[in-house]
Amino acid sequence: MSHSRWIIFFGLLSLAWVPHAPAATALSPSSEGCLECHGSVHPGIVADWQRSRHAAITTGAAMAVSGLGLKVSGRQVPEPMRDTNVGCAECHTLRPEAHVDSFEHNGYKVHKVVSPEDCAVCHSVEREQYAANIMSAAHGNLAGNALYADMTRTILGTGEIKEQGRIHFAEPDAPTRADGCYYCHGTRLELEGTELRETDMGQLTFPIIKGWPNQGVGRINPDGSRGACTSCHPRHQFSIEVARKPYTCKECHAGPDVPAYKVYEASKHGNIFSSVGGRWNFDHVPWTVGEDFGAPTCAACHMSLVVNADGVVVARRTHQVSDRLPRRIFGLIYAHAQPKSPDTTIIRNKAGLPLPTDLDGTPAAEFLIDGKEAAARLSAMQATCRACHGTSWVRGHFERLDGVVAATNAQVRAATQLMQAIWKKGYAQGSGNGGSLFDEAIERRWNDAWLMYANCIRFSSAMAGGGDYGVFQEGRYHLNKSVMEMADWLKTREAGKN
Amino acid sequence: MSHSRWIIFFGLLSLAWVPHAPAATALSPSSEGCLECHGSVHPGIVADWQRSRHAAITTGAAMAVSGLGLKVSGRQVPEPMRDTNVGCAECHTLRPEAHVDSFEHNGYKVHKVVSPEDCAVCHSVEREQYAANIMSAAHGNLAGNALYADMTRTILGTGEIKEQGRIHFAEPDAPTRADGCYYCHGTRLELEGTELRETDMGQLTFPIIKGWPNQGVGRINPDGSRGACTSCHPRHQFSIEVARKPYTCKECHAGPDVPAYKVYEASKHGNIFSSVGGRWNFDHVPWTVGEDFGAPTCAACHMSLVVNADGVVVARRTHQVSDRLPRRIFGLIYAHAQPKSPDTTIIRNKAGLPLPTDLDGTPAAEFLIDGKEAAARLSAMQATCRACHGTSWVRGHFERLDGVVAATNAQVRAATQLMQAIWKKGYAQGSGNGGSLFDEAIERRWNDAWLMYANCIRFSSAMAGGGDYGVFQEGRYHLNKSVMEMADWLKTREAGKN
Amino acid sequence: MSHSRWIIFFGLLSLAWVPHAPAATALSPSSEGCLECHGSVHPGIVADWQRSRHAAITTGAAMAVSGLGLKVSGRQVPEPMRDTNVGCAECHTLRPEAHVDSFEHNGYKVHKVVSPEDCAVCHSVEREQYAANIMSAAHGNLAGNALYADMTRTILGTGEIKEQGRIHFAEPDAPTRADGCYYCHGTRLELEGTELRETDMGQLTFPIIKGWPNQGVGRINPDGSRGACTSCHPRHQFSIEVARKPYTCKECHAGPDVPAYKVYEASKHGNIFSSVGGRWNFDHVPWTVGEDFGAPTCAACHMSLVVNADGVVVARRTHQVSDRLPRRIFGLIYAHAQPKSPDTTIIRNKAGLPLPTDLDGTPAAEFLIDGKEAAARLSAMQATCRACHGTSWVRGHFERLDGVVAATNAQVRAATQLMQAIWKKGYAQGSGNGGSLFDEAIERRWNDAWLMYANCIRFSSAMAGGGDYGVFQEGRYHLNKSVMEMADWLKTREAGKN
Repeated sequence: MSHSRWIIFFGLLSLAWVPHAPAATALSPSSEGCLECHGSVHPGIVADWQRSRHAAITTGAAMAVSGLGLKVSGRQVPEPMRDTNVGCAECHTLRPEAHVDSFEHNGYKVHKVVSPEDCAVCHSVEREQYAANIMSAAHGNLAGNALYADMTRTILGTGEIKEQGRIHFAEPDAPTRADGCYYCHGTRLELEGTELRETDMGQLTFPIIKGWPNQGVGRINPDGSRGACTSCHPRHQFSIEVARKPYTCKECHAGPDVPAYKVYEASKHGNIFSSVGGRWNFDHVPWTVGEDFGAPTCAACHMSLVVNADGVVVARRTHQVSDRLPRRIFGLIYAHAQPKSPDTTIIRNKAGLPLPTDLDGTPAAEFLIDGKEAAARLSAMQATCRACHGTSWVRGHFERLDGVVAATNAQVRAATQLMQAIWKKGYAQGSGNGGSLFDEAIERRWNDAWLMYANCIRFSSAMAGGGDYGVFQEGRYHLNKSVMEMADWLKTREAGKN
Repeated sequence: MSHSRWIIFFGLLSLAWVPHAPAATALSPSSEGCLECHGSVHPGIVADWQRSRHAAITTGAAMAVSGLGLKVSGRQVPEPMRDTNVGCAECHTLRPEAHVDSFEHNGYKVHKVVSPEDCAVCHSVEREQYAANIMSAAHGNLAGNALYADMTRTILGTGEIKEQGRIHFAEPDAPTRADGCYYCHGTRLELEGTELRETDMGQLTFPIIKGWPNQGVGRINPDGSRGACTSCHPRHQFSIEVARKPYTCKECHAGPDVPAYKVYEASKHGNIFSSVGGRWNFDHVPWTVGEDFGAPTCAACHMSLVVNADGVVVARRTHQVSDRLPRRIFGLIYAHAQPKSPDTTIIRNKAGLPLPTDLDGTPAAEFLIDGKEAAARLSAMQATCRACHGTSWVRGHFERLDGVVAATNAQVRAATQLMQAIWKKGYAQGSGNGGSLFDEAIERRWNDAWLMYANCIRFSSAMAGGGDYGVFQEGRYHLNKSVMEMADWLKTREAGKN
Repeated sequence: MSHSRWIIFFGLLSLAWVPHAPAATALSPSSEGCLECHGSVHPGIVADWQRSRHAAITTGAAMAVSGLGLKVSGRQVPEPMRDTNVGCAECHTLRPEAHVDSFEHNGYKVHKVVSPEDCAVCHSVEREQYAANIMSAAHGNLAGNALYADMTRTILGTGEIKEQGRIHFAEPDAPTRADGCYYCHGTRLELEGTELRETDMGQLTFPIIKGWPNQGVGRINPDGSRGACTSCHPRHQFSIEVARKPYTCKECHAGPDVPAYKVYEASKHGNIFSSVGGRWNFDHVPWTVGEDFGAPTCAACHMSLVVNADGVVVARRTHQVSDRLPRRIFGLIYAHAQPKSPDTTIIRNKAGLPLPTDLDGTPAAEFLIDGKEAAARLSAMQATCRACHGTSWVRGHFERLDGVVAATNAQVRAATQLMQAIWKKGYAQGSGNGGSLFDEAIERRWNDAWLMYANCIRFSSAMAGGGDYGVFQEGRYHLNKSVMEMADWLKTREAGKN
């Protein structure tokens, strides 16, 4: 691949490139104290941190970076921290008063759960953006929406067969909740008490935290904050590189309900990343299209600060992912405009249900962004596309997506009408009599149509991810099959009158 | 991994290896003109091209390469082009008379859609081979086959529920077609008109092309040619490396209908590629087995020019993928010998249907290659296997595949007989009365059996991809389940007489 | 990523790093003889072997390695072999008296199928551990268990439709068996005879071996031994690197029945491996956590010799994978304690069936490890976790897994009760009248519940693999759906009395 040549030069002077020589560090005495024990107790964590930028540069030096390369957006960094690297103590002893889980540990008030509020001391802009990100509200949006809570119960709960073949799904237990939906949505961490434990260093006291461990995007932390920066910047390297690679997004966006990663992987973009991305630079800030990377990853389109070769900004960094997204194409019965507020529990459709559309697809418009805002977001997204694609390419792509969204909404509407007919005829119970929309076989078939297949088709279109995810791999073949099966089921019921 | 040592040497002379120093380039004035604007307007494209061989060597120098390393098979390259690199203008202004989408652009006749006929100026042999490749006919083979067109309609079209639970599937709209089957099969690009657009460089006129963007393998181009070299050699690096990596094939060969990539990934070959392929050389031409790569990718078995360490040819390069394939194992009801012509719309079975077999599996032999030709193709394939495997290994593998093809065909025949019984009894409509073979739930269950599961089993066998894709992951477990469900459905209908 | 600087130094002395300079080798005359022909006949194999440690160091030198880096655990290596590398002849002519497939080949008694007993000459400890590994018994455990054999028949066999919609599944043929279940479980290799073949080197005689090729983990070799070291250390590099990468495990652990690889890939561990694992060292022995690798692969948790930065052992090497596993979470109706013996055909539950639990989930305790042993194995596993995670993290994780195992067992029990009700009412036949538990559509739906979905949920929990595999991707959404469908099916039968 590499075009290379040998240059011959003369002289007494030679240059040798020495990789991985560490930058000067200035560890705080507190962090040095931590490392004395934890270096041998948890060698993996410590080695990982040693590779981090946190370990390689003092906060003050990081703050002095000028221009777009600046990573420390916070200007309120306490004076003493500016002269040291970000070591263990810098994060794990920050703001002890705010952390109800802080505990006395060898002379320090330490907390296990570092929260976005701690990170915000240095990264305030990112934290603020993230608070406006619907992902930060992922716990409450699920737990606080009666309809979703009911759906969660029918998915996670153990079912007991009752008379006449009806199934009663119990409320799921804590392990199942934490390992199921709330693995990604984030658990609620609560201090339950403390315990005395024998350790290699003698008897020590530790807090007991319910819901731990978890690193879901909407985790409710003991200090009341929401989210976990480590969802995408895994401890303790907290690297930009990892967050920019699609494997991070895949942790929560790979299933048929939201198959973004799988579609990406099968797209032209994903092909190029997989084939030659090993030679790209995932660390440079800002991120120069063409120079640093040759095809977008998830981050490039949705989050990163991207510039062109002249250093001109193509896209501004955002931690509010919907900044470049006009529409929500998954998770609900119909695709619809992005909600205005990250808290979606406030949404009500015409029927009073906490849904962004009616069952016929009509949007609950007052809770959703308007066309002007949608256009602005689309334009922000398209700026990135244009770094590599001409105007007609970009326009063609998004017009096609509009068509696919309309077509999938139409097919889901047909499935929903069929479901409504089934409810009306009494072949399934629906929400009547305290029933659920999600606990009978035929209802689940309807769920499949919109929660799996229509989503998958839209992702395939939105991300130019190609044929298979739009057709045979949980795409249109299956969407239409689910409608055929619903019709077939109804026909059987009609014939049997059972 | 690397065994290395330090060599000490003395003297005043040092050698430094300078990576990525570009080879001498000679850009045409036309291409220099393009770069003036497009370097800043589309930095991603330009940077990608700058990494290409097109940017690194003049056409004349590339033509002067001797032996198996020669990449420019065309001998009719126009004189002026021989002294320059292949820049923007060399491709985008070629053969303006042939491109109905050519437009006046800053003094040049430019066309957006570079076609295989343009590439053929330098790569004539590859283009010729590709024209004989069934993939080049992928658009027409789907659109021009009445049975497939009907199937496409039931997969892509929106279904409306009619009386008695019957569903009417409408003809799919253009966005759905382009994003569904034709994403891989290729759209038909048609000039619709022109438009005046405001750009950073002032008001300019551009063509409007229906079906754009698309890079499917059978795309119908505005110049009438079929295919898109960029399906596998993505713009604007057009690299051999990317085409040789399996991620390229995955763009269209990953779904359950044709799971080649997934099976490969789970095979021993795929394991070795994933584990240590990062150290292989994907650029060398010819490609030396053992030296350049340690296990085959898709390209090695199906397309590439492979030599052994002595430079002896193991397999000749081909862009007609069926050159090494005796059989088609997917996409149709039964596995069967390769069709003779890339245009499969001409095929008729005994019943007059455009299918390569009858419903009972009997091949439409006059349209398919004979045993002698099949043996020659198998032998070409096996030559590659033998570079790493002994004769008994290779024979054992292919005898097993023969057995698996027979067994899957037998199981599909049982499923088809069941389907025919259902049609005969009138429980499903089939093709009678203008009906479809694909639009009822029970028919789709039959489709699953051959279009998904039997395929998947055969790929798993053909590519030694192992247990899961042949058994639990869309394999035999599911094939047999689909037959059980068809029998169960029939039993219910018989009992209910509905 | 790499922090680097330029060091300027003066003098006449320069150092140049020359990669891939081979270590001194001492090939035996026999192996030199092999290479004379096979170097050109099978260049891929030879080149692969040339990259191996076998080709780079003499056995004697390898035996002289002291401390944890020692790879040759056998002390009975024959004297002559100590002075040479491990070449072709060293393995393929070992113990000719034991190999019934040995054949006369240019003056040597050669056998094609190198068995674990051959490898044991140098790697005796690993071979001994592997013999205690349930994987080594994978062939017999499947073939020798009447219930599994029946299940295999309904999965692999071709079904013929009989009267009243019943399906008769025939015994699967040899190709289907070898390419289906036994691809991973291992075939039985049997000498069938010999043949005379024309080769480039003239007429030669070769053995014909039934069941060849195969590299399944429980392969029955012609010398009577069980297993194939090449399952995980692929020929002819036999590298530790490949075995330590998760792609090796994926060959057999990727389907919905045992989705370990897929879950890993979507976990935080898998993300980190995919994102930055390209810079790790997969060759070092022992394997230093933090230094050599930053997140575990399958091998790190289940098999490898792991040390901390001070060289203290975190986990001992084992080739008996269950050494660190208290429980079996897949493949059977309920999760249960590990069996005591690798031969599971000896197990009988209360009803006399060869199953580790009753149909109600009660364990066949006398055949399974007790709580004390389970605790010891859990503790061995957790030692690896603790290299990067605190005590409360590790405890929280495994308590959650306990809960998930209990919940999935409970849901499977509900499904099984429903199945039993269906059998009792005569709507399905079950094992009565020589029937099968696996050959009717409703039975397969029950199989789905425990063989696919409950497994997948447990893997997702055990490996912290997150939401999707525990919920929407073959997880709880589908487990509960299968129960709903079983109830729905029963309701239809009850109504129709058919």
